Amino acid sequence: MGDLPEGWETTGGKSPSLFRRFTFGSYTDTRTFLDALAELSEETGIHPQNINFGTTYVNITLEAEDGKELTETEHALATRINGLGTEQGG
Amino acid sequence: MGDLPEGWETTGGKSPSLFRRFTFGSYTDTRTFLDALAELSEETGIHPQNINFGTTYVNITLEAEDGKELTETEHALATRINGLGTEQGG
Repeated sequence: MGDLPEGWETTGGKSPSLFRRFTFGSYTDTRTFLDALAELSEETGIHPQNINFGTTYVNITLEAEDGKELTETEHALATRINGLGTEQGG
Repeated sequence: MGDLPEGWETTGGKSPSLFRRFTFGSYTDTRTFLDALAELSEETGIHPQNINFGTTYVNITLEAEDGKELTETEHALATRINGLGTEQGG
């Protein structure tokens, strides 16, 4: 695997995970991103282990699929999530 | 105001809030609930201050609109959220 996808960091916890916080200018932009994320999950059959969102932010945790080690699967999903964005810095 | 809507509890934090955890039997059911919640937010123009969800749960925080006191506004929204449910206990 290469470097982490832009903006993502690794976290510990029960399973190794990738984490990123996205911030937006309005609730409408946040909602647009969430809808795109739901479509991506449907298409790929993979959904983030946790999503925490409020008016202008979405925090995403992608847990290692096998619970042990992050692989290209999580990196590829993180990269695709980055591509959804109307993101406005964060 | 009457009693709290079923299943909701008050929490402290920066502003007084209503909190409830909903649990579901599958990601599909969770997704159906989230989509209904998004539609309700669009219809009412009010959205929860925070939503935290994973494969089979959705945690919802409704913060007091004025930051000081919970009113009928939050109670009514909580009751409508209860009505969305394909909820399976929690």
